[in-house]
Amino acid sequence: MSSTAGQVIKCKAAVVWEAGKPLVIEEVEVAPPQKMEVRLKILFTSLCHTDVYFWEGKDCGERRRGVTELVQSDHVLPVFKGECGDRAHCKSEESNMCSLLEDQHDRGVMINDEKPRFSIKGKPIYHFVGTSTFSEYTVVHAGCVAKINPLAPLDKVCVLSCGISTGLGATLNVAKPKKGSSVAIFGLGTIGLAEPLFGASRVIGVDLNPSRFEEAKRFGVTEFVNPKDHNKKVQEVIVEMTDGGVDRSVECTGNVDAMISAFECVHDGWGVAVLVGVPHKDAIFKTPPMNFLNERTLKGTFFGNYKPRSHLPSVVEMYMNKELEVEKFITHEVSFL
Amino acid sequence: MSSTAGQVIKCKAAVVWEAGKPLVIEEVEVAPPQKMEVRLKILFTSLCHTDVYFWEGKDCGERRRGVTELVQSDHVLPVFKGECGDRAHCKSEESNMCSLLEDQHDRGVMINDEKPRFSIKGKPIYHFVGTSTFSEYTVVHAGCVAKINPLAPLDKVCVLSCGISTGLGATLNVAKPKKGSSVAIFGLGTIGLAEPLFGASRVIGVDLNPSRFEEAKRFGVTEFVNPKDHNKKVQEVIVEMTDGGVDRSVECTGNVDAMISAFECVHDGWGVAVLVGVPHKDAIFKTPPMNFLNERTLKGTFFGNYKPRSHLPSVVEMYMNKELEVEKFITHEVSFL
Repeated sequence: MSSTAGQVIKCKAAVVWEAGKPLVIEEVEVAPPQKMEVRLKILFTSLCHTDVYFWEGKDCGERRRGVTELVQSDHVLPVFKGECGDRAHCKSEESNMCSLLEDQHDRGVMINDEKPRFSIKGKPIYHFVGTSTFSEYTVVHAGCVAKINPLAPLDKVCVLSCGISTGLGATLNVAKPKKGSSVAIFGLGTIGLAEPLFGASRVIGVDLNPSRFEEAKRFGVTEFVNPKDHNKKVQEVIVEMTDGGVDRSVECTGNVDAMISAFECVHDGWGVAVLVGVPHKDAIFKTPPMNFLNERTLKGTFFGNYKPRSHLPSVVEMYMNKELEVEKFITHEVSFL
Repeated sequence: MSSTAGQVIKCKAAVVWEAGKPLVIEEVEVAPPQKMEVRLKILFTSLCHTDVYFWEGKDCGERRRGVTELVQSDHVLPVFKGECGDRAHCKSEESNMCSLLEDQHDRGVMINDEKPRFSIKGKPIYHFVGTSTFSEYTVVHAGCVAKINPLAPLDKVCVLSCGISTGLGATLNVAKPKKGSSVAIFGLGTIGLAEPLFGASRVIGVDLNPSRFEEAKRFGVTEFVNPKDHNKKVQEVIVEMTDGGVDRSVECTGNVDAMISAFECVHDGWGVAVLVGVPHKDAIFKTPPMNFLNERTLKGTFFGNYKPRSHLPSVVEMYMNKELEVEKFITHEVSFL
């Protein structure tokens, strides 16, 4: 046990006091973990668009009773999605939506006592998406911690906690394009570019920002469509380009109009569209139902359908086996302090 | 060759002169088949809701050049969907939407010369959904003809040309419920009741007409919901009944509100909703996209994804092997003449 076991740890953390206000570095108190919780030392973290949307790892940690799979000095990735292992979604092969650990972005407190483990001079500081990795130490539910290969470089694989795994899984686990097929990707950010497109014959990237196109070529995108360049709907452009539509599409922006385009640009008979980007809460998806009757499929995924504890270690192994190049996604390294 | 080969055949047919007007028995001339066409003698036919929607087989026939798979005296089922065998959809394992023979409900004429083979005193009479089986003789494209086991009783298996196969295929080929799962069926007509529900543990039938519930029990439906009996949305009722939603749902009415209910009543994480009923052309399907993100799938099918020539003979064999009870779907036998 470390000398801080059971003690409050004082450390630095980046705190947002109010939505839209800058992150400021504060000294925070991090309470010891409770039942089914672990306290982690964060060495590296990465930034997701979701962090910005809400404006809003790795170990040397301390576990508490109930946690049997982790020991101090394990290397782990904290993940915004949980996997308690006991509930229906965890037992289903088809889902990663643990009902115990869902809605972490709204919760801000630990499940055990409905309180946060962070404070500043006794004033509670709330958790963020169940992980709160902008802090030197954090406390997370053990279901949100994936134990990974200790040889994996943490400054690289920390980016696998979110966007890259989401894109990878959206393709490998959900869209499942066949060899030689055509794919359209809406949104050429990390998630879009993390689609593994090895076998696709045509990869059409859609983005409003043309500066992304040159870089996207390095990720295997072969053609580009900027909706601003056309007087017709982007789905009509893609249907014309592909003589009826693409075999698969993946929507990574969260914009509901892009979702509709991503669905309506897949080929009838066999086309599958996968929604990945998180929509505005008031958005409504609209399409003539005949588009479904014409044998198209629409489905969505969170975190690429990966169960964090069960599957994320194998994604790290893909990197270790050089099947997944993580470095090309890392554009900046910035210190908090 | 029969003595009528190459000759116009005069026979009786039920003709609608105008939408909404009664069917009247007329003497019609049936021209000989042209390239890739066959002329069939109709012994039995069946009635589909689609017949009513547009207000709107079996052999001893004559084939023409290009038709290699059929000989005179073959027993066949004419099907409203075609399978030319050559185009992309026919070559795809995933689809039955032959692009050569689609839109037959709008066409009314044969592909070869854009003319009908029916006439009354020289005045053209238009075909219906590519089959026109309300006639003693008809001419259809060879791609719309499934050659079946000659031992199969035609007065029974004629009902497999449409609704029953649609319901059967929607479940076996598209929804694919696992053993022990829960299923909701919207619309307890032929298609809904033809869902093969052998392995499901709960089958919830949804219909506005309570008189259907008693009969539906014979088809394996275990629970009933009449939307009129509730002050809340039917999807909310089903989600409450099933602690989160059904594993699969199948929409067989074509009403867009029922489609939305069928989608929104499936469980997050793994639920699959299948649309079968043909919607109004101006209908719009609307749902918050988060319902997809929460790992639900929505897809549609025509004719249960069965390719008519390739797959329908095996559906007839299911009947011959007593795996499919067709008799219980036949409520009335009526003579045209």
